[in-house]
Amino acid sequence: MSTQKLKNEKVFRDPVHDVIRVQDQVILDLIDTSEFQRLRRIKQLGITSEVYHGAEHSRFAHSLGVYEIARRFAEHLENYYATKVPGDGLWDPSERLVLLAAALLHDLGHGPYSHTFEHIFGTDHEAYTQAIILSEDTEIHQVLLQVAPDFPAKVAAVIAKTYDNQQVVQLISSQIDVDRMDYLLRDAYYSGATYGRFDLSRLMQMMRPYQDGIAFDVRSMNAVEDYIISRYQMYVQVYFHPVSRAMEVMLTALLARVKHLYALSQKDTMRSSAFIPEALKPLFAGGIDVNYYLTLDDAVLLAAINTWRYADDSILADLANRFLDRRQFKSIVITAGMEDLLPKLRELIAMAGFSPEYYTAENDSYDLSYDIYRPRSKKPQTQIELVRPDCSLVELSAESSLVEAMSGRYYGDARFFFPREMLAEQAIDDVMAPVYGDFQRYVHNMELVRPTED
Amino acid sequence: MSTQKLKNEKVFRDPVHDVIRVQDQVILDLIDTSEFQRLRRIKQLGITSEVYHGAEHSRFAHSLGVYEIARRFAEHLENYYATKVPGDGLWDPSERLVLLAAALLHDLGHGPYSHTFEHIFGTDHEAYTQAIILSEDTEIHQVLLQVAPDFPAKVAAVIAKTYDNQQVVQLISSQIDVDRMDYLLRDAYYSGATYGRFDLSRLMQMMRPYQDGIAFDVRSMNAVEDYIISRYQMYVQVYFHPVSRAMEVMLTALLARVKHLYALSQKDTMRSSAFIPEALKPLFAGGIDVNYYLTLDDAVLLAAINTWRYADDSILADLANRFLDRRQFKSIVITAGMEDLLPKLRELIAMAGFSPEYYTAENDSYDLSYDIYRPRSKKPQTQIELVRPDCSLVELSAESSLVEAMSGRYYGDARFFFPREMLAEQAIDDVMAPVYGDFQRYVHNMELVRPTED
Amino acid sequence: MSTQKLKNEKVFRDPVHDVIRVQDQVILDLIDTSEFQRLRRIKQLGITSEVYHGAEHSRFAHSLGVYEIARRFAEHLENYYATKVPGDGLWDPSERLVLLAAALLHDLGHGPYSHTFEHIFGTDHEAYTQAIILSEDTEIHQVLLQVAPDFPAKVAAVIAKTYDNQQVVQLISSQIDVDRMDYLLRDAYYSGATYGRFDLSRLMQMMRPYQDGIAFDVRSMNAVEDYIISRYQMYVQVYFHPVSRAMEVMLTALLARVKHLYALSQKDTMRSSAFIPEALKPLFAGGIDVNYYLTLDDAVLLAAINTWRYADDSILADLANRFLDRRQFKSIVITAGMEDLLPKLRELIAMAGFSPEYYTAENDSYDLSYDIYRPRSKKPQTQIELVRPDCSLVELSAESSLVEAMSGRYYGDARFFFPREMLAEQAIDDVMAPVYGDFQRYVHNMELVRPTED
Amino acid sequence: MSTQKLKNEKVFRDPVHDVIRVQDQVILDLIDTSEFQRLRRIKQLGITSEVYHGAEHSRFAHSLGVYEIARRFAEHLENYYATKVPGDGLWDPSERLVLLAAALLHDLGHGPYSHTFEHIFGTDHEAYTQAIILSEDTEIHQVLLQVAPDFPAKVAAVIAKTYDNQQVVQLISSQIDVDRMDYLLRDAYYSGATYGRFDLSRLMQMMRPYQDGIAFDVRSMNAVEDYIISRYQMYVQVYFHPVSRAMEVMLTALLARVKHLYALSQKDTMRSSAFIPEALKPLFAGGIDVNYYLTLDDAVLLAAINTWRYADDSILADLANRFLDRRQFKSIVITAGMEDLLPKLRELIAMAGFSPEYYTAENDSYDLSYDIYRPRSKKPQTQIELVRPDCSLVELSAESSLVEAMSGRYYGDARFFFPREMLAEQAIDDVMAPVYGDFQRYVHNMELVRPTED
Repeated sequence: MSTQKLKNEKVFRDPVHDVIRVQDQVILDLIDTSEFQRLRRIKQLGITSEVYHGAEHSRFAHSLGVYEIARRFAEHLENYYATKVPGDGLWDPSERLVLLAAALLHDLGHGPYSHTFEHIFGTDHEAYTQAIILSEDTEIHQVLLQVAPDFPAKVAAVIAKTYDNQQVVQLISSQIDVDRMDYLLRDAYYSGATYGRFDLSRLMQMMRPYQDGIAFDVRSMNAVEDYIISRYQMYVQVYFHPVSRAMEVMLTALLARVKHLYALSQKDTMRSSAFIPEALKPLFAGGIDVNYYLTLDDAVLLAAINTWRYADDSILADLANRFLDRRQFKSIVITAGMEDLLPKLRELIAMAGFSPEYYTAENDSYDLSYDIYRPRSKKPQTQIELVRPDCSLVELSAESSLVEAMSGRYYGDARFFFPREMLAEQAIDDVMAPVYGDFQRYVHNMELVRPTED
Repeated sequence: MSTQKLKNEKVFRDPVHDVIRVQDQVILDLIDTSEFQRLRRIKQLGITSEVYHGAEHSRFAHSLGVYEIARRFAEHLENYYATKVPGDGLWDPSERLVLLAAALLHDLGHGPYSHTFEHIFGTDHEAYTQAIILSEDTEIHQVLLQVAPDFPAKVAAVIAKTYDNQQVVQLISSQIDVDRMDYLLRDAYYSGATYGRFDLSRLMQMMRPYQDGIAFDVRSMNAVEDYIISRYQMYVQVYFHPVSRAMEVMLTALLARVKHLYALSQKDTMRSSAFIPEALKPLFAGGIDVNYYLTLDDAVLLAAINTWRYADDSILADLANRFLDRRQFKSIVITAGMEDLLPKLRELIAMAGFSPEYYTAENDSYDLSYDIYRPRSKKPQTQIELVRPDCSLVELSAESSLVEAMSGRYYGDARFFFPREMLAEQAIDDVMAPVYGDFQRYVHNMELVRPTED
Repeated sequence: MSTQKLKNEKVFRDPVHDVIRVQDQVILDLIDTSEFQRLRRIKQLGITSEVYHGAEHSRFAHSLGVYEIARRFAEHLENYYATKVPGDGLWDPSERLVLLAAALLHDLGHGPYSHTFEHIFGTDHEAYTQAIILSEDTEIHQVLLQVAPDFPAKVAAVIAKTYDNQQVVQLISSQIDVDRMDYLLRDAYYSGATYGRFDLSRLMQMMRPYQDGIAFDVRSMNAVEDYIISRYQMYVQVYFHPVSRAMEVMLTALLARVKHLYALSQKDTMRSSAFIPEALKPLFAGGIDVNYYLTLDDAVLLAAINTWRYADDSILADLANRFLDRRQFKSIVITAGMEDLLPKLRELIAMAGFSPEYYTAENDSYDLSYDIYRPRSKKPQTQIELVRPDCSLVELSAESSLVEAMSGRYYGDARFFFPREMLAEQAIDDVMAPVYGDFQRYVHNMELVRPTED
Repeated sequence: MSTQKLKNEKVFRDPVHDVIRVQDQVILDLIDTSEFQRLRRIKQLGITSEVYHGAEHSRFAHSLGVYEIARRFAEHLENYYATKVPGDGLWDPSERLVLLAAALLHDLGHGPYSHTFEHIFGTDHEAYTQAIILSEDTEIHQVLLQVAPDFPAKVAAVIAKTYDNQQVVQLISSQIDVDRMDYLLRDAYYSGATYGRFDLSRLMQMMRPYQDGIAFDVRSMNAVEDYIISRYQMYVQVYFHPVSRAMEVMLTALLARVKHLYALSQKDTMRSSAFIPEALKPLFAGGIDVNYYLTLDDAVLLAAINTWRYADDSILADLANRFLDRRQFKSIVITAGMEDLLPKLRELIAMAGFSPEYYTAENDSYDLSYDIYRPRSKKPQTQIELVRPDCSLVELSAESSLVEAMSGRYYGDARFFFPREMLAEQAIDDVMAPVYGDFQRYVHNMELVRPTED
């Protein structure tokens, strides 16, 4: 068993947390694995950096940040709430290493542009995270094994939320966990957003362990509320930005096109699949095992898109160019009661020469900022509990009228995406001018409108 | 001629400058070109992000920042120092657009990991910047043409420092220019470094145009001094960090190996060059024209390195693995008078099974923080001038004893790089143990030492 | 008429706005007046710095900040929305100076610890601001006169909200004005609060003038929402902090005691009023004219409290000591339905030897974060309008469900304050122990509780 | 003996260090004393806030900051360098409390506007700090006694630098101590200066105890260098700002005038000393004991100056007005070799009706940024030592050529101060016009010049 402390702590300079302190040999060894270093080559926000040009940070940086918050929380819990009698509901210091390892590794299974990627290839990053931890082939697994034979399984259980210590599970994933805390702060710092900040020190100082998880002293209600609002603001203003969704929609179309062409090539021997780099072929052939999955990063995907600029297939080449040169689709909100107009729009877009399958999309982005625990929901949430001076618990939205107003509500919108050409202004000598003009009777001032005489 | 103002300014959120304001149609059109969008896919600091994990920002972000500083300076000059009589040495407002375009485009010719890239392939990013501006094939050129037929040539002349308005030239490149101002602030912000900051507002307020260039009011001497020191600090602490130089040395070795293998394949038909992706072959075949050059970005290079993990050539595969998994070479300072020990070290490294050609390197990194104008120097510097109340000029180091102490001095060091295995500790059952032990008689506490009895 | 621009702008270094730029001679002259310099000696947050020890900034700093925001807004309006035809609802650039002067001077009439001060002496800082501007005795008035004979009256009218240009009035005082914008950012910066920030640049870029005032482009709805929430957070977390309210309650009691003793001395010639410094006597004698009012600042009041530590009157001396040594009263929330317990608490406090008149207080602090315009309300609010692409206006809470949830609601609480001795723990040898014990049956865990058998 | 830990740590929100953590009952009790609370009413930077309007922070805030840095250093030392064998040169954890108390209390003896105050009244804040700690009358002393009977003496010895543990002494006062670390960061934050920052985390991580004090790992040489330069920059740009020195010179003149008038009143019974508030009389009568000293704060002094606006003595009234209304003296550098002109300037100033004794001054401000230990110097400095990998020590300037260039050099200047009227421009109808004109032959462009024909 190797739970050795480092003689001198190893420090990573970090603009969000000032320093990331590594104090355990095993944590340092995990960082040095090939699988963890791969996260340097995967952007945290994927396509969002197309809108917020400063937000180019990697999942590597985020993972270190999540680890650091967990480390500080563990230290605080150990100093002030260490268990005295087994079962007293306090913090068991022997859980420290499993907490830190889970925090560090929670995003290990992310692939390039995860959102889109998972949509097209049906992968699931959480499943890959667990697989990487559990697979005997990985360096990660070998390092974890040095702590104890059952240590990989324990860390994977935390990720799967099946670990029996609910304090550890909730610290890693709940409605107020170290993952969210880091990404809100980090994404705000790198994008330059003014929201997204909240009082991390106060949340740490006011967190309390209890039998079934973690809670916050009721005196910190406003700090918790502030965190919920920050999260809401980052979603509606950064993560759901229409332009990054437009880029995402285009990437989806592009990969769907490649998939389609590959499928054709499998049926029709006259068609070549040579346009797909060897490194990506297994993706389209299906059956992506862990070892192969770990070879994928942003560069592999982007380099392929670079070559598709010159593809024989004109749709693929066009989409690759639009994507790389950032000529993103335009979009409008699909106002309630106006959905019946969309078929007409698609028809006009087809008339203008764009395949609706690849050149239009509906995309709805909604986030549940906060919710109470609803046992019969599909995805029940662990509600946030506050501790009153008499040690009784009270659910957050019962104390905060602001959170109550947000609780259980989905924020976001549904949008219809289409090629920017449809909004062309002076198209007098363009044969498509009448089609564009017709389209613009439905889309005015970037809003979906019902033409007066339709 | 199109020098149209936008009806509403277009704003980019930027964490360093808060907002980047675009007020001219031509600037917006330049940003939207394919060539400029490519800069999103090239990291500003290349390999440095391996040490400062937060510093993943792109040349796109930096270029916008340089533009924004130039825009603010131009506004200030126009408000307070607009020329009244031709030849009065004040600021000619009609130079605004050439200044802004040159600021925005100054880094257009950068390739992936420029430093290493240029070293191996003999390219020169400044030459490419000019070529992209002047080539009729590029979107950049077409946009610039809309301003005036001679506008591309004017912008290229500013980059080449041959433009006749020295105020514009010095704002874009001198010892205190808008390029350096942005990269110091930006690299500090993203790396989390505490140095690198200086008083941009005061420099702007205190800048004065004069007949032969730009100068600073003597009352801002300390702000100028502070800028010089910030630059020095960023060089010695960030840009010259031994670990990023180790990664650079490894990338150099890796590309040199590919070049070598390609050359062999050209001579010997039994050898294949199939391990080089098509997208990269022109690089090794020589003759890189502008159009091809523009297809290169970080992703293309990184994706190739990803495939080289599985190359048949064991040196190439090993270097690719070390590079991607960040198992960087170790290094020691080559202390003056100890250079004679290096051949012995190389010999031991060879005995340990590592080709010294690819597994060792000497790398010296030195920076001249500031220098006066020395007409007979190889690369004479435009010295920084201060303006006294009676309008006479005085050179910076004549006023600042701190700058005087730094002036003309090179800061940095020379280092010897070698595989980390050479420092292995417990190597009892390793056949190489005696070799490592011998090596470690020369390298003790990460210093080059002369063994007592050698 | 003197509306002369400065040859070189004068710059004040400011940590919140980086720099404050003064470009007009009249603004510089206003800053240099005795009345404006007095604001250096009045803290912006009064007693709040007893809780947030960093928040010691003055009204001088805040006033400069409000001016700077107004200056930037005016510049933006002039660049993008300058009026073309009289009555077109755009921005009239000739209003610039009245806007800037009103922004700079809006807090001129504040006295020391304004909130408490106005409560005790019945003064009104807005009335004093206007009086200082209009009084011929002040330097401020003389400087304003140099612009135009009616200029003082115009500036005063803006403060009084009776000025006919509603754009100017709303910029200076409305639910989203330059005053609030500065104080939220400044108070957050100095207190170290993590909330209170919002996107000033975006609000500026998205502000639009219209016939009846100012509005914001609907695309900036989230930025406006963020500003409303920031304001809410600063109120509930900083401005309404129970400890600063406790200090305020004590200062109120202290001044009330001085007033009482002074009144006695006027009736009873045996009693001296010598304990009141000459500089403060007019305050208690009533009839505070502008010239006298301008001699008051934090120092005059604090120095008097310093001497009252040694007053013959034991209540006054005790309150002065408690105030200066920060032994603040404790407090509990007056839970709805429990008000009937307060008389009993006061009775016990009296039994413990404390005069309930000076040693207890009820204080309710409530803020209306936002409200729509309610014509029949006592203090109707100018609602915040958003501009849609078709130029129609829509009220903020109709667009933002979060603001809708807050609209018209008062946030805050009512608290009961009492001496900390009442909560003394081990009082065995204290004759008051039984009284304290009795009190603590009602106040448990800092909550007001109804004893089980009362 | 009371060295009890708090059950829950008490946290102060601080914008510089995020949070100040109090973990010991005795530290909390010290903060709650009357003597420590008094520091809230004394500005850290005194008159400097007249130039940097944001820098209004108190010595209370600074003292908490110094404590917090000391606390973090102690924690780091205890975690990584705790002594194993007595005399091993490592950190003795039992010194923690004396370190923290000395850090917190090191500025306790400061009075209002200390610099000026000490100059006029011959007081010494370090002596008062020790006296307050040692006097049995103070609450501070009583709290310290609870730790141990000799604890007050130990803390006082640290302040006096006579304590036998040199590690503690150097942490509290040396060329790189916790006091300087906090004030550089804090003064930069509040003034808005861009310099003054340095890498506190790295200094902490790299600090090493050794037998005779503290040292820094040689790998942190650049961070130490950065700290030295930050200190230099704050001195030359903030602390030595000519305008704050002008205000200081005026305050000195004002207090000298009061002293003079008081002395006259003592000799001449016809003259009253009633213009001096009772609270200040002991100051002028001499013999300021600790108890009286503790009644002084900024407010007492400022309130007196407020009343002196109306003094019968015209010089005193005029100086009070100039000081409060910030009509500061102007100044010029006394260039070497031009000192002989000063008597002529004083003569002209006297001719213009200003008493040279009160209306002129020479003020030289010089700082030694760093120096090696010079045993024969009047005030020998503890030089900064770096630790090499082989544990040998090397003095900082031997490693850093930048520090070597600064070492032993005094930076600053000497200035001559005079009334701004002397520079009046259009004085045609002023009888003093010829005198002013004559003066301006010597003072041109704010420089001291020798008239061509004198």
